[in-house]
Amino acid sequence: MAEQVATNIHWHEGEITRAEREKNMGQQGVTIWMTGLSGSGKSTIAVALEQVIAQRGRHAYRLDGDNVRHGLNKNLGFSADDRAENIRRIGEVTRLFADAGIISITSFISPYRADRDLARALHAENELPFLEVYVDAPLDVAESRDPKGLYKKARAGEIKGFTGIDDPYEAPEAAELHLRTDKLSVGDSVQKILDLLGTRGILPA
Amino acid sequence: MAEQVATNIHWHEGEITRAEREKNMGQQGVTIWMTGLSGSGKSTIAVALEQVIAQRGRHAYRLDGDNVRHGLNKNLGFSADDRAENIRRIGEVTRLFADAGIISITSFISPYRADRDLARALHAENELPFLEVYVDAPLDVAESRDPKGLYKKARAGEIKGFTGIDDPYEAPEAAELHLRTDKLSVGDSVQKILDLLGTRGILPA
Repeated sequence: MAEQVATNIHWHEGEITRAEREKNMGQQGVTIWMTGLSGSGKSTIAVALEQVIAQRGRHAYRLDGDNVRHGLNKNLGFSADDRAENIRRIGEVTRLFADAGIISITSFISPYRADRDLARALHAENELPFLEVYVDAPLDVAESRDPKGLYKKARAGEIKGFTGIDDPYEAPEAAELHLRTDKLSVGDSVQKILDLLGTRGILPA
Repeated sequence: MAEQVATNIHWHEGEITRAEREKNMGQQGVTIWMTGLSGSGKSTIAVALEQVIAQRGRHAYRLDGDNVRHGLNKNLGFSADDRAENIRRIGEVTRLFADAGIISITSFISPYRADRDLARALHAENELPFLEVYVDAPLDVAESRDPKGLYKKARAGEIKGFTGIDDPYEAPEAAELHLRTDKLSVGDSVQKILDLLGTRGILPA
């Protein structure tokens, strides 16, 4: 233990535990996995949720197309295999974030049940909480919003394999939360997620 | 803005900035990228460093073979392409962690200069700090430690393409820190990293 005397720093044998990290962070790591059609409101809710969590002095981080599709997953296309690998990698990254004690919020369409279930299973392996939030607007509502003009392109045949148009969206059967965004405001949707985090003991009200 | 009245929660337009996240976290995100031969001391230093950072109430997370090779990168082998992709993905994940305000500490051999330079470039794109730490023990010292018995297997021909034996290690030419672990104790090595973080204004002493 000569090094401890030499440097005046101290540490114990073995690795720091997740519980120690969480105590230090003052919160529990969790993945809030939002799934739904393009235009259903995932990103809008995620942006507002991150802010409200930050206001409470807690630490959240959003993963979305901007920072994942153009980064970690920029070598993936839109084939069935690549779509599955896209979601698998996001599942693995959120597992790391949850293990680090961060509240991560994903906003990807993630249309296939099997892919979402894999992301859930990865968290379960490490007993990390995973909350699936079904951000649900009827197709006609989502299409009428069309924030990125993608439905228009899909209807014109300029985009192939677009979820809801010529590729299926497999709705969750047992999501922890189901938000009908054609009926709920953004604030009400955020509040329902906060309520869920409170109920689970992750973020006290 | 009816939702704000309805739910008693408030948020502003636009996304939360990295500066806001860092203020909330009370620290700056940074990637501490350790590179060196198997047995050079990367993991030992990383484990001690994480603890000392946590003692100061700051938030660090280690990425290593245990949580990356068996998770995000479990579909990669050891071909030249797969090794490059392994480091690229780790570079992308550390970029996300740094953007989230976390001090991430990687301990991968990462033997090729081009791969490490790519990880550095990914951080530079977002003006995120990246500190390369060359964890340097002469091959005979690293081999004599052989904590996982891998050198023995490589010498026996049971492992092919092992760094330092039949695959090259390209030493950093401009690492932010060079630790000779055959001369420095673990504590002294950790202290030198802390000093560097202090100098850079990332972690005040």
